[in-house]
Amino acid sequence: MAADREASNDQTSSRIRVLSSHLHSPPPPRRMASSEKDAALAATPSDAPTIFDKIIRKEIPSTVVYEDEKVLAFRDISPQAPTHIIIIPKVKDGLTGLSKAEERHIEILGYLLYVAKLVAKQEGLDDGFRIVINDGPKGCQSVYHLHIHLLGGRQMNWPPG
Amino acid sequence: MAADREASNDQTSSRIRVLSSHLHSPPPPRRMASSEKDAALAATPSDAPTIFDKIIRKEIPSTVVYEDEKVLAFRDISPQAPTHIIIIPKVKDGLTGLSKAEERHIEILGYLLYVAKLVAKQEGLDDGFRIVINDGPKGCQSVYHLHIHLLGGRQMNWPPG
Repeated sequence: MAADREASNDQTSSRIRVLSSHLHSPPPPRRMASSEKDAALAATPSDAPTIFDKIIRKEIPSTVVYEDEKVLAFRDISPQAPTHIIIIPKVKDGLTGLSKAEERHIEILGYLLYVAKLVAKQEGLDDGFRIVINDGPKGCQSVYHLHIHLLGGRQMNWPPG
Repeated sequence: MAADREASNDQTSSRIRVLSSHLHSPPPPRRMASSEKDAALAATPSDAPTIFDKIIRKEIPSTVVYEDEKVLAFRDISPQAPTHIIIIPKVKDGLTGLSKAEERHIEILGYLLYVAKLVAKQEGLDDGFRIVINDGPKGCQSVYHLHIHLLGGRQMNWPPG
């Protein structure tokens, strides 16, 4: 149909417009000051790949207890309770820690807690469990890929660390 | 809440206090059918109204640090860190604890964590913080209305209780 051809033509011309707009786009407004470079470098480690990426890709072995397309759950190699499981999003999407959460992360954050509940049930933690999310150095976070700790199988104490 | 710490020490007396506070509450507006009574009894104490309902209705004073139509955040009256805030959904919707989470709760669960991040930022916890969710007796839960603990302002330790 003519309308289809026109649409196709429109698409082509719009693509050309996008390309040409890139050709004509102005150069970056200014060079970064050295302090900004330092800030950029300082930000690098926290968003770099972590050991969890290798666990997700199965390049490092782990004892997986739950997996679906969005989430992986595996046993902590240094357990602090008879059951100690780490639950992570497979795609980090900037979530180095909870302090980096944006509105777009609300669904995956909720899903991680829901999976924690499923895993707690699967592990038979009917008498209770504790969920912990560490953020930053004062929260004891060591791996900068958001993760939930699920602990159970013993009486948890208060305060929580 | 203070009740969380008490739970680990003396859960029975904590429950008795909760029950006795119910004794002083006004009678229900109408008589229940016996089947409803059974259902209410079966739901007690885990699905009964809690002290949080009174805090939400401002019948019990609290230091509110964040509030919107879905969530309330207020300072713990027995803080375990310089910053210790409780974040709760205003509508419990069966979420006595995380172990009762269903798929329909995913959004509110994620939103609670997102609000925790907002409050952490508001409190200036830029060096980190810890999120804790207690479930059931072994998790030290005593108030059966899902709540998130946000702790910060000091170095948190490991294990988390």
